[in-house]
Amino acid sequence: MSPDERRQQLLALGVAALADRPLEAVTVEELAAQAGVSPALVHYYFQNRQGLHSAIVRTARDAMLHATEPRADLPPQARLRDTLDRFVVFVRDHHATFYSLVRGAASGDENVRTTIQHARDVLAGHLQDVLAGLGTPPGPLLDVAVHSWISFAEQALIEAATDPDVPPDDLAAFLERSALGVAAALEAAPGPTG
Amino acid sequence: MSPDERRQQLLALGVAALADRPLEAVTVEELAAQAGVSPALVHYYFQNRQGLHSAIVRTARDAMLHATEPRADLPPQARLRDTLDRFVVFVRDHHATFYSLVRGAASGDENVRTTIQHARDVLAGHLQDVLAGLGTPPGPLLDVAVHSWISFAEQALIEAATDPDVPPDDLAAFLERSALGVAAALEAAPGPTG
Repeated sequence: MSPDERRQQLLALGVAALADRPLEAVTVEELAAQAGVSPALVHYYFQNRQGLHSAIVRTARDAMLHATEPRADLPPQARLRDTLDRFVVFVRDHHATFYSLVRGAASGDENVRTTIQHARDVLAGHLQDVLAGLGTPPGPLLDVAVHSWISFAEQALIEAATDPDVPPDDLAAFLERSALGVAAALEAAPGPTG
Repeated sequence: MSPDERRQQLLALGVAALADRPLEAVTVEELAAQAGVSPALVHYYFQNRQGLHSAIVRTARDAMLHATEPRADLPPQARLRDTLDRFVVFVRDHHATFYSLVRGAASGDENVRTTIQHARDVLAGHLQDVLAGLGTPPGPLLDVAVHSWISFAEQALIEAATDPDVPPDDLAAFLERSALGVAAALEAAPGPTG
């Protein structure tokens, strides 16, 4: 195994470990044992537990952003729906990873928080693009609405993406309609001059 | 000062301390110094730092719930708007307290988390009542929508309640319309057999 392959293997094991426990409980020693290497080798790649946690969170975040990258060739509303369809599937298939990312947004580790904030900023940017494409006017509440809807979607995905009573299509459709509903709530707002 | 008055004074100082630093940084020693009493007396009332933190969070939570208690005599939509008007004012006037409550929802201290979860459950119950009064049909996504909208509102209040470019009326109106928009997104959802 090349050094890069070994590093990828350790990170994949680290992300998989999130299914059983929170990020803070993932240790260098257990990953070394699972990979059949020495803890010293894991330290070689990631310095310390904090470095390992940062790298695991970046890996999980990048997997989420990659899986939910909008298709630039679609018109705005279809692009929103297509992204949401893939988001629901991602969270259904990687619930623990997603939960770790959402939970990690309040982590005591600044590196972890910064990594996750980047993901929220990227998702907020995607939604801004959709809303701009739909003609939502700019205003002092536009950013607030976008960030708040990201929190809304995180909560809905965590609660419902693995609920057997909620078909993935229904959840994606609900998220799509609520994003449009929030955008409409924004359009009804008076402008800065009231 | 009676023992109960002293306890209330210490808690008021504790809630006020949240303006300067997170709950976890509030210490028995500093509150004792501020109140001009011995740390031993603070320990007498609250046992230890954890007990003090739990009591501060309960005090802050109860102040928020009290300030935003719905008026039962109003019809559903007017009740929603009236509650939101008071919520915006509460967060504007007690931003640090509210921020501590939202942040504390991910606290490592289980007592703190439970205390704050109770507030979210109460707020979710208020919103359920409004939606039931407006005729929103029950369904597998109703609870999800309510909890997700609470996250939405928390984020919007934190970002915008103290923004000088956002008049309190505009923010309350936006929150009202987005709650109705989310409810409408729910009504458009196919039922469990759909």
